[in-house]
Amino acid sequence: MSWFETSLMAKSGVAKGEARTTHSITIADQGKFHYVYGPYVDPVIEVDPGAVVTVETHDAFEGKITSESDQPSKILNFPYLNPQTGPIYVKGAEKGDCLAVKINSVKPRGPQPVGTTCLIPEFGGLVATGDTALLNDPLPEKVKKVRLDENGVYWSDKITLPYEPFIGTIGTSPEIEAISSLQPDYYGGNMDLPDVAPGAIIYLPVNTPGAFLYVGDCHAVQGDGELCGVAMEMPATVELQVDLIKGHTIAWPRLENEEFVMTIGSARPLEDASRIAYRELCRLVAAETGMHINEAYMLLTMAGKVRLGNMVDPKYTVGASIARKYLV
Amino acid sequence: MSWFETSLMAKSGVAKGEARTTHSITIADQGKFHYVYGPYVDPVIEVDPGAVVTVETHDAFEGKITSESDQPSKILNFPYLNPQTGPIYVKGAEKGDCLAVKINSVKPRGPQPVGTTCLIPEFGGLVATGDTALLNDPLPEKVKKVRLDENGVYWSDKITLPYEPFIGTIGTSPEIEAISSLQPDYYGGNMDLPDVAPGAIIYLPVNTPGAFLYVGDCHAVQGDGELCGVAMEMPATVELQVDLIKGHTIAWPRLENEEFVMTIGSARPLEDASRIAYRELCRLVAAETGMHINEAYMLLTMAGKVRLGNMVDPKYTVGASIARKYLV
Amino acid sequence: MSWFETSLMAKSGVAKGEARTTHSITIADQGKFHYVYGPYVDPVIEVDPGAVVTVETHDAFEGKITSESDQPSKILNFPYLNPQTGPIYVKGAEKGDCLAVKINSVKPRGPQPVGTTCLIPEFGGLVATGDTALLNDPLPEKVKKVRLDENGVYWSDKITLPYEPFIGTIGTSPEIEAISSLQPDYYGGNMDLPDVAPGAIIYLPVNTPGAFLYVGDCHAVQGDGELCGVAMEMPATVELQVDLIKGHTIAWPRLENEEFVMTIGSARPLEDASRIAYRELCRLVAAETGMHINEAYMLLTMAGKVRLGNMVDPKYTVGASIARKYLV
Amino acid sequence: MSWFETSLMAKSGVAKGEARTTHSITIADQGKFHYVYGPYVDPVIEVDPGAVVTVETHDAFEGKITSESDQPSKILNFPYLNPQTGPIYVKGAEKGDCLAVKINSVKPRGPQPVGTTCLIPEFGGLVATGDTALLNDPLPEKVKKVRLDENGVYWSDKITLPYEPFIGTIGTSPEIEAISSLQPDYYGGNMDLPDVAPGAIIYLPVNTPGAFLYVGDCHAVQGDGELCGVAMEMPATVELQVDLIKGHTIAWPRLENEEFVMTIGSARPLEDASRIAYRELCRLVAAETGMHINEAYMLLTMAGKVRLGNMVDPKYTVGASIARKYLV
Repeated sequence: MSWFETSLMAKSGVAKGEARTTHSITIADQGKFHYVYGPYVDPVIEVDPGAVVTVETHDAFEGKITSESDQPSKILNFPYLNPQTGPIYVKGAEKGDCLAVKINSVKPRGPQPVGTTCLIPEFGGLVATGDTALLNDPLPEKVKKVRLDENGVYWSDKITLPYEPFIGTIGTSPEIEAISSLQPDYYGGNMDLPDVAPGAIIYLPVNTPGAFLYVGDCHAVQGDGELCGVAMEMPATVELQVDLIKGHTIAWPRLENEEFVMTIGSARPLEDASRIAYRELCRLVAAETGMHINEAYMLLTMAGKVRLGNMVDPKYTVGASIARKYLV
Repeated sequence: MSWFETSLMAKSGVAKGEARTTHSITIADQGKFHYVYGPYVDPVIEVDPGAVVTVETHDAFEGKITSESDQPSKILNFPYLNPQTGPIYVKGAEKGDCLAVKINSVKPRGPQPVGTTCLIPEFGGLVATGDTALLNDPLPEKVKKVRLDENGVYWSDKITLPYEPFIGTIGTSPEIEAISSLQPDYYGGNMDLPDVAPGAIIYLPVNTPGAFLYVGDCHAVQGDGELCGVAMEMPATVELQVDLIKGHTIAWPRLENEEFVMTIGSARPLEDASRIAYRELCRLVAAETGMHINEAYMLLTMAGKVRLGNMVDPKYTVGASIARKYLV
Repeated sequence: MSWFETSLMAKSGVAKGEARTTHSITIADQGKFHYVYGPYVDPVIEVDPGAVVTVETHDAFEGKITSESDQPSKILNFPYLNPQTGPIYVKGAEKGDCLAVKINSVKPRGPQPVGTTCLIPEFGGLVATGDTALLNDPLPEKVKKVRLDENGVYWSDKITLPYEPFIGTIGTSPEIEAISSLQPDYYGGNMDLPDVAPGAIIYLPVNTPGAFLYVGDCHAVQGDGELCGVAMEMPATVELQVDLIKGHTIAWPRLENEEFVMTIGSARPLEDASRIAYRELCRLVAAETGMHINEAYMLLTMAGKVRLGNMVDPKYTVGASIARKYLV
Repeated sequence: MSWFETSLMAKSGVAKGEARTTHSITIADQGKFHYVYGPYVDPVIEVDPGAVVTVETHDAFEGKITSESDQPSKILNFPYLNPQTGPIYVKGAEKGDCLAVKINSVKPRGPQPVGTTCLIPEFGGLVATGDTALLNDPLPEKVKKVRLDENGVYWSDKITLPYEPFIGTIGTSPEIEAISSLQPDYYGGNMDLPDVAPGAIIYLPVNTPGAFLYVGDCHAVQGDGELCGVAMEMPATVELQVDLIKGHTIAWPRLENEEFVMTIGSARPLEDASRIAYRELCRLVAAETGMHINEAYMLLTMAGKVRLGNMVDPKYTVGASIARKYLV
């Protein structure tokens, strides 16, 4: 894995990107799940940089939607949604550091049909919502349970979708805020960005001692924007490798994989999410290559790529990326 | 005060809008101030409905900007901004209730010049910010200290502005979140809406036992939108009368005064803040008058008024109102 | 009218703000109405600066909605909506000049009920539209015909609204574009801003020889935002006094009345309309008073007022204003 | 080209997707270029469905920026920007029909360095603009001339970008409007969407007799969003094959290529562009497959892809697509 050797995690991590110890957090270990990203709880485990942690996650509905005849509006109890496993305390992490999390695998967990998607009243990208507050009647609710495994997502008799799993919600704790796990922001959270997938490293700002890493909300497959607001949700087993870059301060999450480096912004309106992501990428390109930031701005005009994560959550998420080969 | 007798507070409050007990919270009583609206702290006092509470508040900078030669970027230590007095625990308040807070007075406190405004880098309505993330250089910082009293705000040799005080930040705690006091949202918070002024009653949703009322950030005068992001900030003494409406559930803050009833929305983009405020007002008008909500929508097309609170905070705030005389 | 003597129109107009000649354009004179603001038609009349022109306007539906049982979606034939009287060619007007239009009166015209409002599918501030393109079903259509005169708008048995007439759509032609009269923009157009009322002067940029002044779409009363998209529409007789300020270039419409000076912006999202209006007002205040633009920015933070024109048209319109007394 | 045989153009075109006649429009033939999309000019040629037309286009600056020492703000003369070749009158085209335009090739034209990009004051995705109207100083202007051919874009000693040409601006005339060629909208225009490339068919609504097809503004390569506002602009020779689908009414542009079908929306804020594109795609999927539109909404949640065209023009452009294989 030669690109990995050139990654920030391998080059600058306290553990040099090495896997050193192994840990696990099962559903039973976790016990009580969390619905906010915040510092006001006790960590479920403490690990050193270099830890490989196997984590069991619930689906976004904590497994409560079990049948296509269920009515989400009756079952779901806001704000107790999108349960998170963690927090993981990373020893030595302090405000101003950067947490590096390599995603080794994301596997479905539990009995079939493992996958759930649904239409929830006043939630989604093509309906009136609590914020885009209109007088139109909501769409009818609908639940769809879907069989899936690591070979495919069996959507219908005619359509099998690829199994392209990723972590919908991952991040560190804010310093003094405790924010709903439904929201993405500068610390990560509910970004719903398909690039946060096996083979990638996500970098997160550390805001509080120990970083407090939370994770949940895995998706078996998702289109750009997570259009109706609910991807192919599944309970999962996730393997993460955690490292720490001391004194490396980032304002927003970043991501590396074999092909590209990405910066991630979350905001409303959607152009502000894009501006955040692209301004961060200008800064990254300028820092990596030594070119003036205005030169980076012009280069990205030709070579920048945009991935729409979500257009449904309290903030919308955009990833901006550039191929590694242009960072010269 | 005949309109008050017809207010929701007087008609439906546990204390029937009566003043029953008196309390005070000084700066010394408060001791440690709070920078989030959340449930993870102990109340500073507990009161019954009917309580009249005199509260001392810091200015948004906790008094740290003392001279026109100060540099805000050096002095201010994010996220420790906009200190809040409280929380006040209101006995009997439960999720689903509505807190009614009548504002009796807002008076300046401390030595002259009492007032502070300033330009802060990457903050304000007409500059690039952390969210509207651009490559332009920031404006130069600037502090302006202003003498003011209850007769006027002495802006310059030529211009005296009226003393039109109000509470910039007031609200209840979310149920499980703890959100920066810089943000306005469904529970109130940093709305920066000039109608939250002496003579008005603000209604706030109760999300957690005891409601946890916070207050701070008083302004001596402010234009619509709080354009540069910093109004005429002042330390203040505020007198509030608190009542509780049991089982009256509201989704967003509401306000009554002699002239009108108002509903308040906070969101980005600004049209979503307006949509929230106006949808809530449609619902209020329909509920109060018995007309169909689509009729209310048409009536507000002719008679609705919009007040822009802020266009600078993490969410923008809009109040939509209708004259009391049309609620027939 | 002493404030008028200090207005830009009186001080700098070619005709010094004097009324010099009188003209009229009746519905019959006009013959064919226009649905775009553009230079590709012949003027209906040519006038000199100082002209007082009495103009008859259709309502926004060209009088086609005559009964409460009409269905707007059947009757209205997009893009042939919002018919405009004009254009009026102003002799001597060239690109870079500024047209000043004093509104002397706006009177209802035609048989009762003169007023029309309605709910139109996929149009309005609290519904899904062609731009905020959602899957929700539209609201039912509804027409309301309303009796009105210069004493009041007789909304219902219980509610009489004030007669507060203004011109919904007024502007000059773009240089080479021809833009729907449903849209507001830098040249004026469908601003739906209640301050464009008798007693005010509106200033418009001249983009093409003769300026090509269009006018239409009068409203008997309207709330802030024109919430459902259709105000109290009426056919009207409008008296305008036209003057010309040579070599005075403005980027967006401006307005003066007895109380304040206003700058007007139209854009989406709504914060951009507000930013345009307020940036123009910063520039105006700095130019009028000699203060630095950053000082103007701080002053407007305390003393700026915002009027929401429309939140329903292809661009939203905001007026920002400051009291004349502070322009010292 | 088997996918082409299954395209709407081949299946339903008047010419059945066949190439029947050949035509050309050189710079000299065109003579006077156009800066608006409108019906108020004479066509440069008339063709039948099945026509293959070779078109010469200027770059967006009409070739006026020739040196890296040029200052765009001095040279460019708004609104005379983005010159368009055409209009091409397509015989038989009427309002309500759909024009199909297959892009056969886009080749650079003229002496080296053929490519131009630049930073223009108050224009671009990461700067304050005329709409996002702020007080920050603009970035310094900068012109970059770039050598390019069909093998590559020679950005610097270190970086060669791929030659991935496409048409930045293409569309039909509105019915009565004439809109700046800088703007994208429902009729196409300045979409700056890299998928409008050789090998694709773009479908455009016909709004006026003869359709009036305009084309210009070719780019040699561009990143998602056209970040600084100016892609790798080049004069070009474009080969188009034009067909006509009678009675097939579309609200917004659509596109087909070997891999996917795409719907295109242009609006502000950016979420509205995304909503338009995705709502159109829901409608397309439902029409093509017979599934309920809410099912299409759920399928696109898993399988929809988003391409950001521009985040810099008067409206932002988004393409939403789904792989052809899922249209079953």
